[in-house]
Amino acid sequence: MENLPLGKAFTLMEPGPVVLITTHDGRRDNIMTITWTMVLDFSASFAITTGPWNYSYAALKKTKECVIAILTVDMLDTAVGIGTCSGREEDKFEKFGLTRAKAKHVRPSLIEQCLANIECRVVDIIERYNIVILQGAAAYFDSSRKEKRLLHAIGDGTFVVDGRKFDRKEMMRSKLPDGCR
Amino acid sequence: MENLPLGKAFTLMEPGPVVLITTHDGRRDNIMTITWTMVLDFSASFAITTGPWNYSYAALKKTKECVIAILTVDMLDTAVGIGTCSGREEDKFEKFGLTRAKAKHVRPSLIEQCLANIECRVVDIIERYNIVILQGAAAYFDSSRKEKRLLHAIGDGTFVVDGRKFDRKEMMRSKLPDGCR
Repeated sequence: MENLPLGKAFTLMEPGPVVLITTHDGRRDNIMTITWTMVLDFSASFAITTGPWNYSYAALKKTKECVIAILTVDMLDTAVGIGTCSGREEDKFEKFGLTRAKAKHVRPSLIEQCLANIECRVVDIIERYNIVILQGAAAYFDSSRKEKRLLHAIGDGTFVVDGRKFDRKEMMRSKLPDGCR
Repeated sequence: MENLPLGKAFTLMEPGPVVLITTHDGRRDNIMTITWTMVLDFSASFAITTGPWNYSYAALKKTKECVIAILTVDMLDTAVGIGTCSGREEDKFEKFGLTRAKAKHVRPSLIEQCLANIECRVVDIIERYNIVILQGAAAYFDSSRKEKRLLHAIGDGTFVVDGRKFDRKEMMRSKLPDGCR
């Protein structure tokens, strides 16, 4: 995994992919599947919707650290599997054959099998709306990975994979941040 | 456009599509293109990132109403066009040949050409993070429309369209809300 400039990390999240989020509660690590996420600005600041119904939430709240791991279509059953069991009972890295890689700024692990990873600090929790505000501290991208198509959840148990790409950089040049023109 | 049960409106937004948002400031209506959105719960509650840099923001803040119009891949250039000009100078419905349809609960118009529309009230604005909290009041879906593939923005001027679908309803049954099982 190569370093990705933090100013480009929002391009990993803007398309709305299914992601994994790793945490470490001080004793054990855990992974959850999250599909309710949003970009907040071009500086790797993100919002996610989560709350006490996710076992990982306690670790997020306590340690204020996590890693967003962006998966691809070949990991669909891993994403669904992780989303339908609890870290309370199981070691999800072991159960799903995922490899921990050491993060630089936070204790939760990167996931080696994922296309990209973003180390994040929790900067705020808006409990009223179950919104957690994250600030990226470092980002990584595995450009050697063949499968790069992201996965999107519909929310009813079906999913859709990235299809054809379209380039409108020319039309949008005035609106793009410096690093992305 | 048929009525869509409000409990299913989140399935329009969860995949992370590019959407149009219509507003009405009391004198004129307007449209903006938004790609930073998030589902907050299963009851048609959503967050969007926007702020004073969007001309529509003043209308959102003042009237506390909008419509989220979900577009499809055939409307790519409409989305980019709307996102790169300002309602301060132009009537975007006219410029882009879009047809207004009357909403039931709010003053901003539905967009007839879109795949789906969600009438929304602004319930809160978290100015610190430029997050606007919306609550859906009614939703509509045009099932007669042939093109149903959503569009996702990467954020660097490129876009990707929905590809193949996968069904994991069986694996996820325990996690799905009642209306979506």
